Amino acid sequence: MKNFNVAVVGATGFVGRQMIKILEEREFPVKKIFLFASENSAGELIKFKDIPCEVQTLNKNSFQNIDFALFSAGTAVSKEYAPLAVKNESIVIDNSNAFRMDPNVPLIVPEVNPEDLDKHQGIIANPNCSTIQLVVALKPIKDEVDIKRIIVSTYQSVSGTGKKAEDELSEQSQQVLAHKKISRDVYPHQIGFNIIPHIDDFESNGYTKEEMKMVHETKKIFKDNNLNITATAARVPVFIGHSESVYIETKKFVTIHKIRDIYLKTQGIKLVDDIMHNKYPMAIMSETYDDVMIGRIRKDLAEPNGINMWIVANNLRKGAALNAVQIAEILKNR
Amino acid sequence: MKNFNVAVVGATGFVGRQMIKILEEREFPVKKIFLFASENSAGELIKFKDIPCEVQTLNKNSFQNIDFALFSAGTAVSKEYAPLAVKNESIVIDNSNAFRMDPNVPLIVPEVNPEDLDKHQGIIANPNCSTIQLVVALKPIKDEVDIKRIIVSTYQSVSGTGKKAEDELSEQSQQVLAHKKISRDVYPHQIGFNIIPHIDDFESNGYTKEEMKMVHETKKIFKDNNLNITATAARVPVFIGHSESVYIETKKFVTIHKIRDIYLKTQGIKLVDDIMHNKYPMAIMSETYDDVMIGRIRKDLAEPNGINMWIVANNLRKGAALNAVQIAEILKNR
Repeated sequence: MKNFNVAVVGATGFVGRQMIKILEEREFPVKKIFLFASENSAGELIKFKDIPCEVQTLNKNSFQNIDFALFSAGTAVSKEYAPLAVKNESIVIDNSNAFRMDPNVPLIVPEVNPEDLDKHQGIIANPNCSTIQLVVALKPIKDEVDIKRIIVSTYQSVSGTGKKAEDELSEQSQQVLAHKKISRDVYPHQIGFNIIPHIDDFESNGYTKEEMKMVHETKKIFKDNNLNITATAARVPVFIGHSESVYIETKKFVTIHKIRDIYLKTQGIKLVDDIMHNKYPMAIMSETYDDVMIGRIRKDLAEPNGINMWIVANNLRKGAALNAVQIAEILKNR
Repeated sequence: MKNFNVAVVGATGFVGRQMIKILEEREFPVKKIFLFASENSAGELIKFKDIPCEVQTLNKNSFQNIDFALFSAGTAVSKEYAPLAVKNESIVIDNSNAFRMDPNVPLIVPEVNPEDLDKHQGIIANPNCSTIQLVVALKPIKDEVDIKRIIVSTYQSVSGTGKKAEDELSEQSQQVLAHKKISRDVYPHQIGFNIIPHIDDFESNGYTKEEMKMVHETKKIFKDNNLNITATAARVPVFIGHSESVYIETKKFVTIHKIRDIYLKTQGIKLVDDIMHNKYPMAIMSETYDDVMIGRIRKDLAEPNGINMWIVANNLRKGAALNAVQIAEILKNR
């Protein structure tokens, strides 16, 4: 069995650290691991399989002899360095927004559209966290009866923003509980014990970039430009795990019973839907389960093809690092 | 000007205390105030206009010479005592679920359907908190272009559950921050730094009672049984203020510009919709504003009659106590 040189770009970030952990957990055949970050983090030691590995400053020459380069260091870094990596014959799996909507770059969720990997030209894009869990949950229904429209409201944790946001939620929570003045740095408003209906920048159409990512990426992954999808993205005072309240209208009629049946057989999905015993997916469960959790599945009482459901996943793992490693797992066998 | 004897039943609860405060703030013409609660709270002193008033145990004879009885002590208490109050010629304004769907009891939001008060037979029902802010926000649009369907996801604070829930959120937040074991009493799961997609009991159709209240009450208040409305209600780790992500489809086309124009002229509504300056309604703002706050108003990019918006209100005040006092204000002039 072949082993591969793997680079993690953005190794000290929340997603980068998960990438390293997941490469270990899933026993990805790593020959040597290379950890890159900005100058600030250079010299830091991160263990991979119990061996401390020094974080290096990313530069033009970082990609010599790298088979897989997993990027999660933001859009600017990806735009500058991913093409360099490809020139060095690395395969780039990019978790940033840099190439997701590029028609020459496949946007991949392994459970949903692995076939699109065939056309890659060196860069493969990892979708946005809130898109990944949505398409994993809806793909089996789309295959069965097709989907006409999607209306989604998100409840997104702060870990998607990174370590500073996690610290801000901790600090503000303590400040509120102690009746002290709130300090604020990361978000435009207090996130402790509050809901902020604003993630990423606003576009001129009134939607945020986060909301439009869900719209554009879902259409691209499902290869369905006629899909009617609209989103509202909100930040909630939760450390980890994104929850989504999802309404869909299917093209053909399907029973809830049938949907459950399909979910029970689908890899990557965990059905958590036993309301008699108060069981439904929750953000805190996403620290334990890697699968996309689905529950509260019920018919719209007025629209026979309307279905409500509640979808939760770990935004750092399935929503980012795990999805990227799963893509590498498919490619390593080619 | 006539003055009235006013009773507050459930005077020591979150909503009861707000009722007393709002009667003061709005200078309701109170001759004498009578505060009732369960035996546990009897003897407690609560100030009304700086005069301490003793809380009494509720009993059969509590309603002699009471003009207005504001109930917020749960469904069982309302069922037992509201008819007794009516027999004593009190007018009951009931914040519980006991009579809301009774065809002989008007379900009133003063900004929306004050005309329904004409038919009251002694009891007037106050709608559920999540319904009140929804119908206040949607009434002006319904009047202008009518509404075909509503899809709502809620982000509801713990104050709706009461003091114990507030304490539980505080305690669990501290426990999580200190990496201690979670203690749990009020909710079926941890609410600190988590989202629970479950409010009130489940019905056999898979929806919670909270979700079905929004469906039934909205139809009754709007007198529109054909309204297609579906809801998902979630509890969030927020102390006060309910947020709602609302999607509507209007019967006729209307521009966002027109909707804003209407909202600017509508009493009881505060338009907070200036995304260029990061202004939108948030739960923490509901401690400052009594109006229902509306923002993030934008068209569904695929459905010309589809509109998304974000609605926030103080669930204890406009969502309960304020609405009840506003009802009394209309009736006192009759």
